[in-house]
Amino acid sequence: MARTIDLNCDMGESFGAYTIGDDAAMLQLVTTANVACGFHAGDPVVMRRTIRMARENGVSVGAHPSFADLYGFGRRRISGERPEDLETQLIYQIVAMQGMCALEGHPMTHVKTHGALGNMAAVDPDLAALCVRAIRAVDPGLTFVTLPYSETHAAAEKAGLRVACEIYADRSYTDTGELTPRSQPGAVIHDPRQSLDQVLEMVVNGHIPTTGGKRLPVLPETLCVHGDTPGAVGIVRALRAALIENGIKIAPFAKN
Amino acid sequence: MARTIDLNCDMGESFGAYTIGDDAAMLQLVTTANVACGFHAGDPVVMRRTIRMARENGVSVGAHPSFADLYGFGRRRISGERPEDLETQLIYQIVAMQGMCALEGHPMTHVKTHGALGNMAAVDPDLAALCVRAIRAVDPGLTFVTLPYSETHAAAEKAGLRVACEIYADRSYTDTGELTPRSQPGAVIHDPRQSLDQVLEMVVNGHIPTTGGKRLPVLPETLCVHGDTPGAVGIVRALRAALIENGIKIAPFAKN
Amino acid sequence: MARTIDLNCDMGESFGAYTIGDDAAMLQLVTTANVACGFHAGDPVVMRRTIRMARENGVSVGAHPSFADLYGFGRRRISGERPEDLETQLIYQIVAMQGMCALEGHPMTHVKTHGALGNMAAVDPDLAALCVRAIRAVDPGLTFVTLPYSETHAAAEKAGLRVACEIYADRSYTDTGELTPRSQPGAVIHDPRQSLDQVLEMVVNGHIPTTGGKRLPVLPETLCVHGDTPGAVGIVRALRAALIENGIKIAPFAKN
Amino acid sequence: MARTIDLNCDMGESFGAYTIGDDAAMLQLVTTANVACGFHAGDPVVMRRTIRMARENGVSVGAHPSFADLYGFGRRRISGERPEDLETQLIYQIVAMQGMCALEGHPMTHVKTHGALGNMAAVDPDLAALCVRAIRAVDPGLTFVTLPYSETHAAAEKAGLRVACEIYADRSYTDTGELTPRSQPGAVIHDPRQSLDQVLEMVVNGHIPTTGGKRLPVLPETLCVHGDTPGAVGIVRALRAALIENGIKIAPFAKN
Repeated sequence: MARTIDLNCDMGESFGAYTIGDDAAMLQLVTTANVACGFHAGDPVVMRRTIRMARENGVSVGAHPSFADLYGFGRRRISGERPEDLETQLIYQIVAMQGMCALEGHPMTHVKTHGALGNMAAVDPDLAALCVRAIRAVDPGLTFVTLPYSETHAAAEKAGLRVACEIYADRSYTDTGELTPRSQPGAVIHDPRQSLDQVLEMVVNGHIPTTGGKRLPVLPETLCVHGDTPGAVGIVRALRAALIENGIKIAPFAKN
Repeated sequence: MARTIDLNCDMGESFGAYTIGDDAAMLQLVTTANVACGFHAGDPVVMRRTIRMARENGVSVGAHPSFADLYGFGRRRISGERPEDLETQLIYQIVAMQGMCALEGHPMTHVKTHGALGNMAAVDPDLAALCVRAIRAVDPGLTFVTLPYSETHAAAEKAGLRVACEIYADRSYTDTGELTPRSQPGAVIHDPRQSLDQVLEMVVNGHIPTTGGKRLPVLPETLCVHGDTPGAVGIVRALRAALIENGIKIAPFAKN
Repeated sequence: MARTIDLNCDMGESFGAYTIGDDAAMLQLVTTANVACGFHAGDPVVMRRTIRMARENGVSVGAHPSFADLYGFGRRRISGERPEDLETQLIYQIVAMQGMCALEGHPMTHVKTHGALGNMAAVDPDLAALCVRAIRAVDPGLTFVTLPYSETHAAAEKAGLRVACEIYADRSYTDTGELTPRSQPGAVIHDPRQSLDQVLEMVVNGHIPTTGGKRLPVLPETLCVHGDTPGAVGIVRALRAALIENGIKIAPFAKN
Repeated sequence: MARTIDLNCDMGESFGAYTIGDDAAMLQLVTTANVACGFHAGDPVVMRRTIRMARENGVSVGAHPSFADLYGFGRRRISGERPEDLETQLIYQIVAMQGMCALEGHPMTHVKTHGALGNMAAVDPDLAALCVRAIRAVDPGLTFVTLPYSETHAAAEKAGLRVACEIYADRSYTDTGELTPRSQPGAVIHDPRQSLDQVLEMVVNGHIPTTGGKRLPVLPETLCVHGDTPGAVGIVRALRAALIENGIKIAPFAKN
């Protein structure tokens, strides 16, 4: 089984005078950064600085698009706009990020959808296909970071788009392989030991342990860590060290 | 002297449910479109549609960046932000436009600054140099559409950036070759015959007639027409016909 | 039966340099204006000008709040934010409009929800109750303009909030008294004669004619006309004249 | 001389998912809160929560309006819009804040302009008069928090608007009584002892010590403290304790 895992973190979410997360610190711990593209968070100055810092730390960068919704930080569920308009908004975010990365000499490797868009696309085949079309329109060589057992994963595979299978340390999984909704008890794993065990089970043994006691096969390539919670840097530092201690190599997911 | 002139018009200024200008009609009359980049006007859907229509009409497209100021439509004068931040905002707009153009198979040819930014840069050497740096950072092969006798023109020439000299039909010129400020009487030329004569004098004879009676040398390459005023399409149609009737060829400015 | 009807129209939807509708012309035809509050459309300058013009034309004014979503013009369906946050956003819009009306010496009479919020609240009891709470928090003496056979109507009645029953000339009704969704054939009535007949049937006879051939009782107080469609002013002028010719009096709905 | 001083702090500057400052902690230390009104910072939810917390802590609240410029956080200098439009924007912010305060049962006492608008109005008589007109349009009983030796102070006095004279602990003063521009050396006082001495000199002896060695008469009513700098709460806590220790009473400025 895999004995290597990528650590990805959402970054570049600051806006103007507003700061979210300690990107400089986090970039010393993770291997992949998903950078907000100015629609739900981020702005050009933040994007450029984040890409530059990622390059200096040898961290891969990707676009992290979402709905045009700064007020809601991309967490509000938005529907009812024309699908082709949403697709164009995603294309714009990805292509703008790609252009900024090219200028900074640090080519973009992937796309990961943010927040409500990610949650909605994971269970909606039409929206998943829309996301895949947007990515492929910009560059069919990009990797789509997706959850296993999701419509986004299925849509990417169907279209021949490379996927990087993403797992979570601090979220439990249902028997169908989806993240337990946050509205349900047990959705979030708070115990560091339990988090570590879940990751090791997935990375070393290739199984997702589910809340119903099942073990679903998985080939994890990247582990999502959070940068915007209290004590985020310390939590990630500890998890990273524990993974290494358990013989897991931390490295960017393969580009193909 | 030049017997050919390009007609450029600002376009893609609609936003969401809001429409400005009849771009579809204007694209049948002009040869160059300056497309708003979503900061002072425009959005991804509008950008894409405008680029596509421009390509279908054989109209050259360029980026038309300005301040991040949708409420003010780029007409409010904004200062006091860090120059490197403004430069990055311009770079972002140009690179995003370039990326959208590439996706639509219609390469971007130029940049023209919009509104207050354009007015401020025309008389501020530092701001002019900043604009030139932003353009060159994205692509030193781009053309900068600038007013003659302006700091932007001077900065572009100094940096070796190709310029396309822009003239106006409906604005008078001061003895130093600048547009008469709109706050002064006689700034705007309302008489179509007088407008045409001014253009012919500039295009055919290579002279800017000034309000003080001088004649300043000029090598005009592009004539700015307006798309957002009442009766805009009719005015441009009439001017275009009159130019052709007077032996002037309408064609995009040379790319080099 | 009622032989008087109010004509209400959404107004004040312009924003900065962007114009929607010919409010000045429409204010000479209608008796009630629903004014956008700067979240999905409108801005302070537009609000103030619209209130002032309404006062000068003897037209009643109300708040027309929606989601914080300028890009989507309040037409995108937004969910997933905390209900108390949405409630506070509505309260803010209503209280800001109330304050601007007070300054202009033209007291606000009512509230009507805009776009997606209106559509969603009409069929969602929780959202309808949230809207009613927001209105009552600002002023329990306000009137809520609601569709008949809607959850908003029911929630207002339950809370003892005065409602003004709103009808449409150009939309057909289902057998349960709701507007036929625009996605279905026959949703929009294009024939002026058919529109007029429907209104007369509702106003004079107190019945909603449904697509299934039923006649549902209704006590219409206000007729919604549109200001943002091509030829809007002419359509409303003709409808208004036809109503008067048929013995209907046009006047603001009773304030209690 | 005065032996009482008010402590005022800018608050309610968070927006959506973005947080600035620890308002809950600061509200236990200050006696007056200037609340952002959603144009350069803040949103309805933040406004309401801030007003509510202020009421619970017995802290006076006022409107803290600025330019419509979330991206620039009100720190960008904006000009070129019609003065009557800016005036209406200020009126809107003040009246919306007043309405929210009324709903929360905590009447608004004052207005203080934010950021670039404040800096510009302090030295521009026309802009100062515009601010005064906006305040008086909403409520001539409001207090205007202004710097001594400023155009805003002069404009308020001329119009008969009550002013509260504001001083700074951490900024030095020029010989004309203005804050030394931040671009100049010695503008900011970093030494807590020197800060305290300056405040005591102003509050107890009624003199502004200037960088040129002058002593200008002053009748300070409120001391501005900062909530958005690192260690802000600790600095204010220490300053507050030192003032009390030196016999200064901390209390809201008189409402008339």
